Amino acid sequence: MIQRLAIIGVGLIGGSLAAALRQRGLVREVVGCGRDARNLQQGVAMGVLDHYTHDAAEAAAGADMVVVAVTLGATRGILERIAPVLHPASIVTDVGSTKAGVVAAAREALDKHFPHFVPGHPIAGGERSGVEASNPDLYERHRIILTPVEETAPAALTAVRDMWAATGAEVVDMSPLHHDEILAATSHLPHMLAYALVDCLAGLGDGEGAILDYAAGGFRDFTRIASSNPEMWRDIALENREALEGLCARFETTFHDLRLAIARGDGPAMEALFTHAKQVRDAYLKRIGRP
Amino acid sequence: MIQRLAIIGVGLIGGSLAAALRQRGLVREVVGCGRDARNLQQGVAMGVLDHYTHDAAEAAAGADMVVVAVTLGATRGILERIAPVLHPASIVTDVGSTKAGVVAAAREALDKHFPHFVPGHPIAGGERSGVEASNPDLYERHRIILTPVEETAPAALTAVRDMWAATGAEVVDMSPLHHDEILAATSHLPHMLAYALVDCLAGLGDGEGAILDYAAGGFRDFTRIASSNPEMWRDIALENREALEGLCARFETTFHDLRLAIARGDGPAMEALFTHAKQVRDAYLKRIGRP
Repeated sequence: MIQRLAIIGVGLIGGSLAAALRQRGLVREVVGCGRDARNLQQGVAMGVLDHYTHDAAEAAAGADMVVVAVTLGATRGILERIAPVLHPASIVTDVGSTKAGVVAAAREALDKHFPHFVPGHPIAGGERSGVEASNPDLYERHRIILTPVEETAPAALTAVRDMWAATGAEVVDMSPLHHDEILAATSHLPHMLAYALVDCLAGLGDGEGAILDYAAGGFRDFTRIASSNPEMWRDIALENREALEGLCARFETTFHDLRLAIARGDGPAMEALFTHAKQVRDAYLKRIGRP
Repeated sequence: MIQRLAIIGVGLIGGSLAAALRQRGLVREVVGCGRDARNLQQGVAMGVLDHYTHDAAEAAAGADMVVVAVTLGATRGILERIAPVLHPASIVTDVGSTKAGVVAAAREALDKHFPHFVPGHPIAGGERSGVEASNPDLYERHRIILTPVEETAPAALTAVRDMWAATGAEVVDMSPLHHDEILAATSHLPHMLAYALVDCLAGLGDGEGAILDYAAGGFRDFTRIASSNPEMWRDIALENREALEGLCARFETTFHDLRLAIARGDGPAMEALFTHAKQVRDAYLKRIGRP
């Protein structure tokens, strides 16, 4: 049972975690912290939060579990702000999309409290944002990646693992670097491609994107992630630049080979690549049991 | 009123056209042609077809409207097969995803009947295929691109335009080359990117695509088109290789610039590109009135 849960950054991710724990009776008090008073009032009205503050230190003081769910760019500042008020036994975790950078920032910002920091990343999300999109079932059957390091206290890791497992999620441990490589591949690179595609096409024709009016439904699906928050993705690309740049280079090679096959009219080479991709994707969908 | 409509290739596209015209009382007799007897029997059972044959010439004989809805690679053979039996007044149209190649093939295959051929491409489709996926409302508020050329008879163009307009579609005319450039951008390039991405990622880790298990929902949307039919996309890439190769080169430039921005940690350049892409995509969604 968590006695006092502080959610610093009450959006879809933090709000859904609080809602999930509350619904299962696993938390006594939830305090929210953020800048947008209307969003925080909404969280109280929904019963996700008991009360709120605009001061992260005030929220973290006396909390046995602090979840930092702000943007990557704001994480270090929050950790610095809460470090002086943390109770020696309180546990801090985060939900950032990259982990090596967060670990480095936390090591400096939290200093002697760093063993009680458990870096985490829920692989979940949605189109909608803000506490009003909170969903107590958001994490069911989703993966949560935790990236403990040498200093991480086993008890802190267990507490954070148990908290996420209680939401119905599958919790997986790996190193921060491995996490960042995997996410560069499965999330960051696709976002770069979607943004670059829309940017590339926008310059065609009248230069105002009118060419998109001829796109079919597949294009909308394909470019959905190009409507993601630009500042958030700038921060992710900056934080994970090393792994991401390597993946971009790898993709360039694959794509250039395909372009050459197109240029020389090499049907068999194209069909082999398309067939392989379809097989790999269809096998993946079968594994996760989704259409 | 179409007296006898021949649908050569009875899948989602041909079946939905027949169903739409039938529902609106605009066709007297529909004959289907294909290889798969079970699919054709299903079309009869659904009331989409009145009867069927496996011989395209038999289907086209006596038809005042012939719709060729087979794969690009099979189109020329079908046109050659039906050319000798066409009534002088009968109109032929197609639904192929590229148009310059089809026009060239039709000019040779149909010869003196070529003025009665109206090249067309409905910008519609769906996950499911086969006549059982037929939907009389598939084309409502979708675009149909017709690409008439100098020789095209105005009466033939009007007849095909009216047929599609009756299904609720918005019919647009443009040149075959312009069509192929637009589709290379909005459809063919995205398919190449999706195939290349899955292929690129499949080689990571254990090489069996296990890395995909860490992907979130956005990845599934992004790569949906990589589960498309490999032979069909090989044919499209071969037919439209000139326009497609140009678009691939354009994309490579945009993407490489982004990669360089990532490598040098240039936050403002990334944010500018992401913001522009988001604005263009969001404006497009607003124009078409979809989320």
